[in-house]
Amino acid sequence: MNISTSRAEERLVHVPLGERAYDILIGPDMISHAGGEITARLKGRRAAIVTDEHVAPLYLESLMDSLQTDGIEAVSLTLPAGEKTKSLEHLATVCDLALSARIERNDAIIALGGGVIGDLAGFAAGIVRRGVRFVQIPTSLLAQVDSSVGGKTGINTRHGKNLLGVFHQPDLVISDTSALNSLSKREFRAGYAEVAKYGLIDRPDFFEWLEANWQDVFAGGAARTEAIAVSCQAKAEVVVADERENGRRALLNLGHTFGHALEAATQYDSSRLVHGEGVAIGMALAHRFSARLNLASPDDAQRVERHLSAVGLPTKISQIPGELPPTDVLLDAIAQDKKVKSGKLTFILTHGIGQSFIADDVPVSEVKSFLEETRSE
Amino acid sequence: MNISTSRAEERLVHVPLGERAYDILIGPDMISHAGGEITARLKGRRAAIVTDEHVAPLYLESLMDSLQTDGIEAVSLTLPAGEKTKSLEHLATVCDLALSARIERNDAIIALGGGVIGDLAGFAAGIVRRGVRFVQIPTSLLAQVDSSVGGKTGINTRHGKNLLGVFHQPDLVISDTSALNSLSKREFRAGYAEVAKYGLIDRPDFFEWLEANWQDVFAGGAARTEAIAVSCQAKAEVVVADERENGRRALLNLGHTFGHALEAATQYDSSRLVHGEGVAIGMALAHRFSARLNLASPDDAQRVERHLSAVGLPTKISQIPGELPPTDVLLDAIAQDKKVKSGKLTFILTHGIGQSFIADDVPVSEVKSFLEETRSE
Ligand SMILES: NC(=O)c1ccc[n+]([C@@H]2O[C@H](COP(=O)([O-])OP(=O)(O)OC[C@H]3O[C@@H](n4cnc5c(N)ncnc54)[C@H](O)[C@@H]3O)[C@@H](O)[C@H]2O)c1
Ligand SMILES: NC(=O)c1ccc[n+]([C@@H]2O[C@H](COP(=O)([O-])OP(=O)(O)OC[C@H]3O[C@@H](n4cnc5c(N)ncnc54)[C@H](O)[C@@H]3O)[C@@H](O)[C@H]2O)c1
Ligand SMILES: [Zn+2]
Ligand SMILES: [Zn+2]
Repeated sequence: MNISTSRAEERLVHVPLGERAYDILIGPDMISHAGGEITARLKGRRAAIVTDEHVAPLYLESLMDSLQTDGIEAVSLTLPAGEKTKSLEHLATVCDLALSARIERNDAIIALGGGVIGDLAGFAAGIVRRGVRFVQIPTSLLAQVDSSVGGKTGINTRHGKNLLGVFHQPDLVISDTSALNSLSKREFRAGYAEVAKYGLIDRPDFFEWLEANWQDVFAGGAARTEAIAVSCQAKAEVVVADERENGRRALLNLGHTFGHALEAATQYDSSRLVHGEGVAIGMALAHRFSARLNLASPDDAQRVERHLSAVGLPTKISQIPGELPPTDVLLDAIAQDKKVKSGKLTFILTHGIGQSFIADDVPVSEVKSFLEETRSE
Repeated sequence: MNISTSRAEERLVHVPLGERAYDILIGPDMISHAGGEITARLKGRRAAIVTDEHVAPLYLESLMDSLQTDGIEAVSLTLPAGEKTKSLEHLATVCDLALSARIERNDAIIALGGGVIGDLAGFAAGIVRRGVRFVQIPTSLLAQVDSSVGGKTGINTRHGKNLLGVFHQPDLVISDTSALNSLSKREFRAGYAEVAKYGLIDRPDFFEWLEANWQDVFAGGAARTEAIAVSCQAKAEVVVADERENGRRALLNLGHTFGHALEAATQYDSSRLVHGEGVAIGMALAHRFSARLNLASPDDAQRVERHLSAVGLPTKISQIPGELPPTDVLLDAIAQDKKVKSGKLTFILTHGIGQSFIADDVPVSEVKSFLEETRSE
C-alpha cells in the first residue's frame, strides 16, 4: 500500500476504505503546497480552517497563501490551545464559521494543529450539512501518527473525555514533517510513544529499526518520514480491518489501560504526566505484567523499557512526580475504563515484542498484586 | 419486504440496509407493548426517552410502564413542542440526559413524538459515544410516514433548517396508529400530503387506492395501517437505493421545491401554512407545470388537485391567507433551494400520476411565467 511519490523524501499511505478511501501524504514542507494537493483531490473551492493559538502564528499564513494560489477561498478560526477546546461551545463556533462561509458538501473543513484541533474540526465536518469534506493537516507527532488516521472525532463533556462525536473519515491527510521542528521535545517524545506502540503491537522489525534509528527520527529527515509512514500504515491497517471498533482495533489500546488510569490518577495534570508518557509507562507495565503471567519473556519487557528510557520516556509509576492515590483507586480507574467486560478485566497483553493480543479475562486480583509490587519499583 | 405479523391489523416493513437493517412495526396500541418489541431486538437494558409537552401527557406513562414491565430502566425528558426545539441547546440537554443515565452503545435513545423530537433525539443518538441505539416511536402522521424512515437527523441554526445533523438509522421504528387519533385534523392532513406523494412519485395504484379509501385512512383502522405501511415501504425503497442522498432520493422532494419557497414566503408562519400544506400546493403545481411543459396530460394535474382538495388540502397559491411577496422573490427562494445546479433549476416533474422524474435543466424563464400565471388563479 505504500507508494513513494516523485518528490524526494515524500511518502504516500493509501487508506483503502472503499467509498471513504483517502491518502495520507507525509513529507517536509508540505503545508506550503497543501493547496495543490487539495485541489487535485477535492471538488469544492471553499475551505474553513480551524487552528489553535500556538500553531496559527507558525503555519497559518503559509497555508492560506497556498490555498489562495490554488484558487481556494478560505476563512480561518484560531482557538485557544489545549484539551479544554474540545467542547460543545467551540464545536458550535466551528460549525457557525463553516455555515457562514457557505461550506457545502464538497467544500472542506481543514484542521491545522494537533489532535485537539483535529478531533474538534473533524466532528464539525461530520455534522455540518450532515457531512462535508475534511482535510487533516496534523502538526503534532501524536496527531500525525495517531489521531489524524481512523476517522474518530469528538469532544469532551462533564461526564468524561470524547463522549460526543462521530466517525468521519478525512478525505486527505497532509503531514508536514518539518512542522514538528517547532514542537516541544516533551510533546515530540509523547507522540513517539505511539510510534513505538505500533512496533510493539505487531511489527517487531519496526521496533528493532526504531531501536537503531530513533535519534534520526528525532532529528528529522528521511527517518522521521519513514517512521511516520510506517505508523500511519499500521494504524490504517487496523482501521480498515475494523472501522467502527468492534474487535481488532482494541489492539491500538496497548499501554492505554494502565496509561489512562495513571492520567486519571494525576487529574490529567499535564505538568505531571502527558498522555504519551502515560502510554509509555503503560506499555512497559503491559510487558512486565505479561512476563509475570508467564505469557512473555522478561527479556522482552526489559528491552521495551530500555528503548523507552533511551528516548527519555518514563517507564515506571514511581517516575511520576507527586503523590499517587492508593492502589485500590488505581484499580477502580482501570475497572471503570471502557475495556471492562462483566467483572473480569480486559487488557492488551503480549507474547513478546510485536506479539500483542486482547486478553479479556484477566483476574482483578492479579492486576492488584502486580500494581502493589510495581508502583514502588 | 412486507410481512404481516400475528397480531391482527399489524404490519411489519423491513428496511434492508445490511448491518443497519431495521424493522418498522405499524399498528394500533403499539406504545403499550413497546417494551417487548425493544427487548426482542436490542441488547441494552437502559433507555433515555425524549418527548414533547403535547405528547408526554398522552403517551409517556404508557411507554414507561411497558419498558418497566420488560426490564428496561428508563429516564425521560419532556421538551417544549415545536420547531424551535430543534436547537443546539436542546441537543446538548438530550446528550447530557443520555450520558447521565449511562446510556452505552447497546442502550437506546427513544424518540416519542413528531418529526421535531425524532430529528433531535436521532441526532443525539448519532453522537453520544459516537453512536448508540435509536428507537423511533413517531406519533404524528408525518413522522410515521416520512421523518422516522431514512436515517436523516438534524437541528436548525441561524443559517437555516436542518443544517447540522448526521445520518443515523434507527434500530427499530414503532408506529402506533391509534396515537394519531389525538393529532389535530390539520396536522393529520399535512402528514397525508406526504402519503399522497408516494403514490404520485411512482405508485399509481396506491394513488388510486387513496382516492377510493382516504376517508377510512382518516377514520383509522386497517386502511390507516395499510396507507402508513405502503408509505414506509415506498420511502424505505428509495432510501435503500440511495442511503446518503446522491441521486434517486431526490424524488422524495416532489412538491417540495415550490413548497419550501412558499413556506419561506410565509416566514414559516404555521398559522398561514404548515409544511404538508406547502407540499400539497407544490405537488399540484409540479403537475400543472409538467402539463404546461407538455410532459404530462392536464387531466392528471386535475386529478391530483381533485384528490388533495377532497381531503381538505390547499392546491393553489391563492389559498394561502395574507399577502405574498412578488414573483421574483418566490423565484429567488426557489433558486436558493439546495436543488439548484449551475444556473438552471432542478425540479421533480412528472409524465403523469406515479411517473415523476428528476429534471435538472428547467429554464428559469419558464418557471417565472408559470408562477406569474398560477399565483393569481
Ligand atoms: N481521534 C483519535 O483517534 C485520537 C487518537 C489519539 C488522541 N486523540 C486526541 O488527540 C488529543 C491530543 O493530541 P495532541 O497531543 O496533538 O494535543 P494538542 O492538539 O493539544 O497539541 C499539543 C500541543 O502542541 C501544540 N502544537 C501542535 N503542533 C505544534 C507545532 N507544530 N509546533 C508547536 N506547537 C504545536 C498545540 O498547540 C498544543 O499546545 C487529545 O484530545 C486526544 O483525545 C484522538
Ligand atoms: N428526518 C427526516 O427525514 C424528516 C423528513 C420530514 C420532516 N422532518 C422534520 O419533521 C419536523 C416536522 O414533523 P411534525 O410535523 O411531526 O412536527 P412536530 O414534531 O412539531 O409535531 C407537530 C405537532 O403535533 C404534536 N403531536 C405530535 N404527535 C401528537 C399526537 N399523537 N397527539 C397530539 N399531538 C401530537 C406535536 O407536539 C407538535 O405540536 C420538521 O422539523 C421537519 O424538518 C424530518
Ligand atoms: Zn494514545
Ligand atoms: Zn416533506
